[in-house]
This record gives sequence, C-alpha cells and structure tokens, in this order.
Amino acid sequence: MAVDANIVLLPGDGIGPEIIEQGQLVLEAVAKRFGHSFQFTSCPMGGNAIDSHGTPLPDETLAACRNADAILLGAVGGPKWDDPNAKTRPEAGLLSLRKELKLFANLRPIKPYKQLIDASPLKREIIEGTDILFLRELTGGIYFGDSGVKPHASGEEAYSMMVYNTEEVARIVRLAAKAAQLRSGRVTSVDKANVLEVSRLWRRVAAQVMADEFPDIEYDVVLVDAMAMHLISRPRDFDVVVTGNMFGDILTDEGSMLPGSLGMLPSASLGESGPGLYEPIHGSAPDIAGKGIANPLATILAAAMALHHSLGLTEEAAVIDAAVEAVLDAGHRTADIAAGGNSLSTEQMGAAVLEVLG
Amino acid sequence: MAVDANIVLLPGDGIGPEIIEQGQLVLEAVAKRFGHSFQFTSCPMGGNAIDSHGTPLPDETLAACRNADAILLGAVGGPKWDDPNAKTRPEAGLLSLRKELKLFANLRPIKPYKQLIDASPLKREIIEGTDILFLRELTGGIYFGDSGVKPHASGEEAYSMMVYNTEEVARIVRLAAKAAQLRSGRVTSVDKANVLEVSRLWRRVAAQVMADEFPDIEYDVVLVDAMAMHLISRPRDFDVVVTGNMFGDILTDEGSMLPGSLGMLPSASLGESGPGLYEPIHGSAPDIAGKGIANPLATILAAAMALHHSLGLTEEAAVIDAAVEAVLDAGHRTADIAAGGNSLSTEQMGAAVLEVLG
Ligand SMILES: CC(C)[C@H](C(=O)O)[C@@H](O)C(=O)O
Ligand SMILES: CC(C)[C@H](C(=O)O)[C@@H](O)C(=O)O
Repeated sequence: MAVDANIVLLPGDGIGPEIIEQGQLVLEAVAKRFGHSFQFTSCPMGGNAIDSHGTPLPDETLAACRNADAILLGAVGGPKWDDPNAKTRPEAGLLSLRKELKLFANLRPIKPYKQLIDASPLKREIIEGTDILFLRELTGGIYFGDSGVKPHASGEEAYSMMVYNTEEVARIVRLAAKAAQLRSGRVTSVDKANVLEVSRLWRRVAAQVMADEFPDIEYDVVLVDAMAMHLISRPRDFDVVVTGNMFGDILTDEGSMLPGSLGMLPSASLGESGPGLYEPIHGSAPDIAGKGIANPLATILAAAMALHHSLGLTEEAAVIDAAVEAVLDAGHRTADIAAGGNSLSTEQMGAAVLEVLG
Repeated sequence: MAVDANIVLLPGDGIGPEIIEQGQLVLEAVAKRFGHSFQFTSCPMGGNAIDSHGTPLPDETLAACRNADAILLGAVGGPKWDDPNAKTRPEAGLLSLRKELKLFANLRPIKPYKQLIDASPLKREIIEGTDILFLRELTGGIYFGDSGVKPHASGEEAYSMMVYNTEEVARIVRLAAKAAQLRSGRVTSVDKANVLEVSRLWRRVAAQVMADEFPDIEYDVVLVDAMAMHLISRPRDFDVVVTGNMFGDILTDEGSMLPGSLGMLPSASLGESGPGLYEPIHGSAPDIAGKGIANPLATILAAAMALHHSLGLTEEAAVIDAAVEAVLDAGHRTADIAAGGNSLSTEQMGAAVLEVLG
C-alpha cells in the first residue's frame, strides 16, 4: 500500500544539516523504490533558530511538527549559544518540542555492530551479544518539575523537583512491556527506591502494571547505581530497560559508549499518538561541522526508525537497516569508525547506502 | 608521636563481620609496629541492628560514633531486610549516620592496580593510567530534600526535591580543590546545568569558589550524561571529579567498575570536623556471607584511609597501601580477583597482609 507522508526535517546546528541531507536522500530512495510519496519540510530549530527567530523553537516550526507524520532531527547546540547567561539556549527548543508533542517515550536501542565490535572500549567477550532497548521517560521527572532559587543565609538555595504520577509511570512501563513482547520478553525497571519517595511510587506502579497486564513478561528492578555498574560489567544480561527522565539521560549515554561507535546510534521519541521525533543520539559536533566528514549512518538509521514507528513501514525500515549492514560489510567507514584506516566523506557514505538501496 | 585513638567498628551485615575482622587485625598490627594505641568498640548497625534493636542505627551506636576518632564500616543490607513494605531498612541507618555526623564529602579513589588490570571490563589501553578521585556531596541534594506523595487523578503523585545552597556547594568544591592541589591540580565539576535550576546554582558557586580561592587549579565542568560517557571512553583524562549526591552515587558506582576489582576499592566519608566513616565500596554480598572467601583488601585499604584522614597517620597509611601492593605482587588473590586461578580465604589474605606488615 502506497503511503503519502509529510516529514518535517529539523537539521539543527553543527553537522546537523550535513547528516540530515543524507537522511532525506535515503528516505527519497525508499519512497521511490516502494512507491510511496514523502513531502519534506525543513524548519529552523535550536541555535540557528535563536539566530534567525530569537527562539530555539519558533511557532511555525512547532506548528509544522504538529502536522507532520514524522520528524527527523539532526542535532542542536554549539559553543556559539553556550553562554550560561543567555536568555535561551538551543536545548530549550528540544525540551519544549518533547513536551508540546507529548513525546513521553525515548527509545534507544544499544546493539553493537559486529563489524565494529573492536571499536568498543569494552573487551569483546563483555560486549559481544549485547542487545538492549532503553525506554527513557521523556516528559516528566526532574526535567519538568517545579524549580526555583531563593535567598539563603549562605547566599542562595535552589531546588528542582523530581515528580511522577501513576499515569506517567504506567504508560512508559506499558510501552516497555509491549516492546519486550517483540524481543526476549524481559523488562528491567531502574529506580532509586531505597532512597527516593518518587522512585517508590515508580516501583509500585511498575510492579502493578507488569503483574496486572503482562504476567508473562519476566520483570525485575535494579537500582540506578547498580545499573550503572551492570551496564559495563554484564551488558548482555539486559533486554528492555525502562527508567525515568534523569536516570535515563545518564544511563542511555553510558550505554551509548558500549558499542564504541556513537555515530551509529539512532533514537526515537514517541507519544501516545501524533508524530514521533527521530534523531541520531550524537551531538552537533561543532569541531567537524562543515568538513563533510560526519557519519550520516545514525541519522539514516533514525530515518528507518521513523518508517517503522510512525509510518508503519516495517519492511522499508528493515531494508534501510540491511543496507547499513551491507555498507559496513563492504568495509565502508567514515572517519569516526575507521580506526585510522581509509574513510569516506559524509556524502560518499550516504551514496554507498543509496547504491545498496538501488 | 604515639597516637591514642578510639575506633568504632560497624561490621554490619553479610560479609561485613568477616572483612571488618581483618581490618581490625591490620590496624592492631600497625598500632603495635608504630607504638600507637587503638581502642576498638564494635556496634550494631544496619540489618543486624534492626533485628536486635528494631532500628538500623540504635542511639548507642550513634553516640559511640560521635565519640569515635574514626569509624570503620563493613557493609549493610541483605534480602532479609528488603521487604519494600518494611517500616525501616538497613540503608536508612547509613543515611542517618551520614547526616547526623555531617559527613558531607564522600571520597572515592578510582585507580586500577596494575597487577589486576586484566580484570577490567575495559581494554587495557583505555584503563591503564587512570587515577581519579571522586568527591561526592553526601548530606544534601535529592537524598535529603523534601519529599511526599499525594492523591492524583490517575492514582498518586510523588515528588523528591533536589536542593542545594551556596554553602553546601562551596565546601565540597573547596575540598575537591584542596585534594587537587596534592594531585595533578585539576578539578572537574559535574552537573546538569543545561536543564536543572539546582545545577545552575551548583555551577555558579563552583566557578566562584574556584576563581576566588583556587586560581591555579585547572577547572572545567562536564554535564552528567557526558561524564557517564567519558568515564568509559577516556577515564585517564580526569583527576579530581566533584559532584552532587545523586549524580555522585551513579558516577562513582560506574567508575568502580573500571578497575574490574570492586573488592579493592575503599571510600571515606568526611565532615568539617569529627570522625570520618571508612568503608569498602562493595556491598554485603549475602550470597557468599559466612563462607570465609570475601576479599578483605578494600576494608584494609579503608582502614588505611582512616589512618590518613582521621588520625593524621600518613606514614602508617602508606605502609598499609604498600603491604596490599606487596601481597598482589606476590600473586596472592581472593576468589573475586583470581580470574579462576588459585585463591586465598578472607583470613589467609588478611594474614598475608599482616605478614608483610611484620
Ligand atoms: C540536550 C539535553 C537537554 C538532552 C537531555 O538531557 O535530555 C540530551 O542530553 C538528551 O539526552 O537528549
Ligand atoms: C545504600 C544507599 C543508600 C547508598 C547511597 O545511595 O548513597 C549507597 O548506594 C552508596 O552509594 O553508599
């Protein structure tokens, strides 16, 4: 069945525009091959939007995103907008977008490519076979709780509140369990229930949802500090890992180091309905921006996730994933994964994927 | 100069009593060799105290700790006291002790032993040369902020507040900078100032203290998610790392995996004045409790930290550190660090250290 889809591109800052270009080319190739029709709209977001519109998330960008079927983001931020005293920052655009579109679930698969396994900082025998799907809660917790500063005898006192309610926990745990049903059938919930009241609620609700709705899914809980250890010492032991916004921010970034190839990892941010937001997990890499050497593969894999999760095009997504495997098998590498060997430019790597896609 | 010191032992649960016994023997040997006099008092704390006194930190234990020159703790906790509906838990004893004694600074050195470097999950070329001193704020932040639960349309809503004031940040940053003066002269402060108000205060105060009081110390800031990555990919690049209670809990545990030998890592919790609390960072290991195979070296190293930080006995501390190096050089291993080879019992390992101490 031919699909007609409206895809918003948010190239962002730094290397963003370079990698998004390749993502778009891949999506166009897939559309052509499978007879779909994708319309692309490119919008300012992040630092570039601060420069052009005075705000990291202009109203028109938000409106375009609301009307999209899927959103493909490059990366935002850079030293130019890093002044701590600035009125607004590129990241604020991303946080607003997540909140406005109710993208409460961030999905991050961590699965090393066998072709790149030697790039891992971990020993082969530790990392080989790792296949984790992180689900990070993305619109609640300490990121969006009440916060403030007030005078204090010693100067100032500041606070940020970590808050969760039953529904917020239940819906992300439910999504984790559903994801586990399609995988090895195991869910690990990560909290700090031995110290935090908010984690005790998280643990109660998670246990209830799992027991009531997913009795067949293997379920356990791990403390966040212990999880930070296990991720390094026995990453293979986990399947689906679900956790809150702050813990997820830290643990998914820790996890992103395991494959040793940050430039290969995509992520998806999903809501109950409406468009999903897809992006590479790496940053805007200002140091190599404009040089044409950034690795476009994470963005291309993010585009595949968009086809899968937002457009229901699972076969098309699988074809992109396979094309990426094929270019790696063929020995193609960008500088970040070349281990000092020959490397392709951003465009050449994109072209290599396009060639496989036919 | 002969020192007369009063040392409180909190053996705790699981393997706690076995390893504390070896710590005490080592301290006695040092006292004898250097002509000091140490009095030991052993007190209940943790699960065992819940069983015997109905509370994890009995009043008499707290009183004894207040009067001590140093406190040596084994480990607390175990499945017996893990019921989430229990009125109190072993960890609560530890948290109260930290708060009551105002132990605001947790020091955790992360330095792999060259003899054990192959035990690291990280590749040798990544881990070799790593030498980090973590300073975790221990009596503030989200661990001790206001918290609560209330009804919510979907069930319940719970919150835990992360709070810091100027003085709390300043004193731990000051301690970090002083520690750096005795090391490579670099301090990294870790926060989440791009999202959290409380981290923005942390960052302001830290920058001020460093600029005003330690202009010669190299200083930088890293976001907590980035730090979780750097710790794995380039641990060698850090010297002193200072951060809040929650971030420190996660990052120090992540860091503890780097050497691949958890059984070798001690920690110290210090206040402005009064006794320090010293402990191995590993847990109570209920699975091997009573088997006499636990590694006593982290506890022995914690005892050395006690001599150094609370009693000012730096030479004596160095002698213990050297003795531990010597037993490793001699090829002595407990099961946890034997990599499947021959291993000594807890007592035999303690005896090996005592033999070197003479
Ligand atoms: C840029 C920042 C606000 C963001 C976050 O902390 O969520 C980023 O670290 C991420 O994980 O997507
Ligand atoms: C036992 C627990 C309360 C404690 C903490 O979270 O501080 C432990 O994890 C630690 O790091 O000492």
